[in-house]
Amino acid sequence: MAILGIDIGGTSIKGGLVYRYGQVDKLFSLPIDKELSQEEQIEALIKKIKETYNDNEFEGIGLGIPGAIDNTLGVVMYSNNLKWENLPIGRMLKHSFPGKKVAMTNDANAAALGEAKFGSAKNEQDVVMITLGTGIGSGIIINGKLYEGNHGRGAELGHQVLVLDGIPCTCGRKGCFEMYASATALVRQANEAIKENPECKLALIAKNGEEVNGKLIFETAKAGCTTAQKVVDNYIKYLGEGLINICNVFRPSSIVLSGGIANQGDYLLNKLVAYLEKEHYGYLPEVKVEIKIASLGYNSGIIGAATLLLK
Amino acid sequence: MAILGIDIGGTSIKGGLVYRYGQVDKLFSLPIDKELSQEEQIEALIKKIKETYNDNEFEGIGLGIPGAIDNTLGVVMYSNNLKWENLPIGRMLKHSFPGKKVAMTNDANAAALGEAKFGSAKNEQDVVMITLGTGIGSGIIINGKLYEGNHGRGAELGHQVLVLDGIPCTCGRKGCFEMYASATALVRQANEAIKENPECKLALIAKNGEEVNGKLIFETAKAGCTTAQKVVDNYIKYLGEGLINICNVFRPSSIVLSGGIANQGDYLLNKLVAYLEKEHYGYLPEVKVEIKIASLGYNSGIIGAATLLLK
Repeated sequence: MAILGIDIGGTSIKGGLVYRYGQVDKLFSLPIDKELSQEEQIEALIKKIKETYNDNEFEGIGLGIPGAIDNTLGVVMYSNNLKWENLPIGRMLKHSFPGKKVAMTNDANAAALGEAKFGSAKNEQDVVMITLGTGIGSGIIINGKLYEGNHGRGAELGHQVLVLDGIPCTCGRKGCFEMYASATALVRQANEAIKENPECKLALIAKNGEEVNGKLIFETAKAGCTTAQKVVDNYIKYLGEGLINICNVFRPSSIVLSGGIANQGDYLLNKLVAYLEKEHYGYLPEVKVEIKIASLGYNSGIIGAATLLLK
Repeated sequence: MAILGIDIGGTSIKGGLVYRYGQVDKLFSLPIDKELSQEEQIEALIKKIKETYNDNEFEGIGLGIPGAIDNTLGVVMYSNNLKWENLPIGRMLKHSFPGKKVAMTNDANAAALGEAKFGSAKNEQDVVMITLGTGIGSGIIINGKLYEGNHGRGAELGHQVLVLDGIPCTCGRKGCFEMYASATALVRQANEAIKENPECKLALIAKNGEEVNGKLIFETAKAGCTTAQKVVDNYIKYLGEGLINICNVFRPSSIVLSGGIANQGDYLLNKLVAYLEKEHYGYLPEVKVEIKIASLGYNSGIIGAATLLLK
């Protein structure tokens, strides 16, 4: 039987049946109605599940949720994006689907589990996944198991200070990795460069009204704009130093990158790997850390969440 | 029966019988003769063990060794301090003491094991130990077990960049934690402050020929020298930021500090805890990380090494 994988995002909830080899079937998507209370939002999800699936189609429900989760209690402690707090989602689902197992983790952890089981780090036992988005999310697999820090409250690789006394972070610290290597950080770095080089190609495109985002910055660099190239090279340095920090603690067999910037594929990967090989501490060929791009794509959250319960 | 714990240092090898509750007996110390080849140095150790103990006094040998260890093969890959390379110390000991178990890890890991089993973090399951010495050593206990990174090659918490493009480190990177928060770093910071404040109390004591070391710097700060106080406060900031990085990944129940600087006890601890409480990311009272001073003292390496095999 399948596991129902549920991927809760900032604006919608996606779900689907996930089978033993990672196949996905009967997908649904439910917009989150922020006018509802948090409990009513979960009731809407339960209704949607009951409409979409027969009770005998799945044997358990796995959830990936953006925020701090107490996976023992089945409670979302808080989620900034969703404005959820102390939400006993595990108990609500168990009550509505008696006899089904329910498991949950945060969305970055779920994605890491999926990539380590079915994606680009398939069947590897020691994997770190880094999501380069608005912030930097991280999921750590040690010995085939999710590592969430003591009490499931740690493993915040995005909130490691890399630049002492650097840019203030949303977390309250200064100079966190995510303030320099997230997609948001790349755009900020590009906008600063545009101000200083108002005649460069990137600046002219931006003046034309195009949104300065990761894709545009990388494409303009590829097209030969030296300002954009400098922005990208500098970004690679921040990202690279943060990844070496991770290597020096976990030395995983792979680091898997996801998020919009990871879509830059080989151009990103080649530059990044060159940087790592140049700067790598205690670089040991026999325990080389491979850098990979996440491969599960749009359904990675659903697959990862289901992986919590897949045998 | 006891386990023979062996603590290999830069200039001498210490050992002793360690019993179930951490009691130590029949200590020995053997200077390392650097004129000998690495194999001859181990032969000398074997001779010393045979002279000191009867074969029926211990059932296994645990070793703590400064350097990179392959604990599966029982080989010291390399040790900077000892100039050892590819030394099959496990096989040599097993050959000389047939029927005895032999286990090994690096010295920082051994010390962490000892503190988590018998020392200041007694019976805790999630502990990080940080040794503030010439460099910064680290030992990580997750779920009651030593975590050494994939292949036992990671967990180098001293070689995390904290200050991007900072002071060059012996590892080849720039701005590592250990370049700012080791005992060596504190002395460097004090010498810089002395140059800028040649009339301060610390400068005058130094001019009198006293060695500027961690103890002197802290004592002069306690005695009211504002230059020394500034040096200490600045050092606390470096140390604190590195420890918060560790909290955000592992969120252990305790971080145990050892090394000469840790002997500053409450003066260090009070300042450090105040800094952490002010700057702590996602500070959760229910999973507070305690900062403790190592308590096993001089024999911690011997006890920790034996802990590898103690039931």
